[in-house]
Amino acid sequence: MHDSGMPAPLARVVEMLASLPGIGPKTALRLGLNLLSRPASDSTALAESLAVLHEQVGFCETCGCFSERGLCHFCNDSRRDAHTVCLVEQPVDVLMMERGHGFRGLYHVLHGRLSPVDGVGPEQLHMAALDKRVAAGLKELILATSATVDGEATAHYLARRYDASGVKISRIARGVPEGSELEYLDEHTLSRALDQRVSWAVTARQR
Amino acid sequence: MHDSGMPAPLARVVEMLASLPGIGPKTALRLGLNLLSRPASDSTALAESLAVLHEQVGFCETCGCFSERGLCHFCNDSRRDAHTVCLVEQPVDVLMMERGHGFRGLYHVLHGRLSPVDGVGPEQLHMAALDKRVAAGLKELILATSATVDGEATAHYLARRYDASGVKISRIARGVPEGSELEYLDEHTLSRALDQRVSWAVTARQR
Repeated sequence: MHDSGMPAPLARVVEMLASLPGIGPKTALRLGLNLLSRPASDSTALAESLAVLHEQVGFCETCGCFSERGLCHFCNDSRRDAHTVCLVEQPVDVLMMERGHGFRGLYHVLHGRLSPVDGVGPEQLHMAALDKRVAAGLKELILATSATVDGEATAHYLARRYDASGVKISRIARGVPEGSELEYLDEHTLSRALDQRVSWAVTARQR
Repeated sequence: MHDSGMPAPLARVVEMLASLPGIGPKTALRLGLNLLSRPASDSTALAESLAVLHEQVGFCETCGCFSERGLCHFCNDSRRDAHTVCLVEQPVDVLMMERGHGFRGLYHVLHGRLSPVDGVGPEQLHMAALDKRVAAGLKELILATSATVDGEATAHYLARRYDASGVKISRIARGVPEGSELEYLDEHTLSRALDQRVSWAVTARQR
């Protein structure tokens, strides 16, 4: 019996669930009790999928995306444009970019961003493979690092690093997010959206 | 590769986490990615604890509380007053009652409450063992069913069922919760608290 009055096996599950981000002790208890109230097969199915998670999910050596073995889903897809690479910070960013279903190039995941304060320099990031890809003759490198100070610094660093390589460097647009009302936007986003305004006729043609 | 662009093993974990109460698909993804970013031992430890959860946690035959084997922690504790039983609806209610650290009697868990609409009658609840305990000479049965219509109906039913048995029947007090401000309380709670007011001198002596 655990101090909390819970049987020890339940307390162990609750404790481990509570170590996940955003899950407090009360939520963890609710989740543990929910699992107990459901058929045992639900818990064992979750257990089995967790047991093999790290073993079965790795990262592509070339681009750093999630990969089940060797080259990833994207690098293996010959229909994608291998000359255009979109650079992001984390593997999850690739999942988000793919939701839009518009991009047909490849990805490169840095697995972090430059942060001198935390001691993260280029050596700590997935950069050597990117050097190779640029040297092999990339046409365009789209910098999709986050719109934060560190993300912006990382984009500037990369633009300088590959300046002489001949690759075209671009940065994803910043402006008003789709579906948002102006009155709730911060002034930096608004002034950026105004600075980087595009000719309306051009936009209309692109649709 | 899963439709979502996630590797299938990750997608399986995310899907199962999303089936838990209060965990939406976005939270489930965040949890799955967090597990992936942590050492593999964290996932396997959680997996192992989930795998044995149902096998190791059962219910006490006598009182219906959680039990790791045979009689539960409470029924096995000879220092507790076996003549006073607090009746609750669910095993989790026992954990909540124990947090107060004040009660030294035993518990009885109904594993539900009467609900004619949902077809839950006395036969569907953990009642036969309670009949035996009352017949064996219980002194007091404290009804701690929830303060809802169904919980109240269940308490009324039990009070009638054991009316002739000689057991003293009591109901946990209803009133203003500790630490609450009157202005935020509902009118039913307030009028109940007023009806069931206690002599202030008595309360002071009890402290």
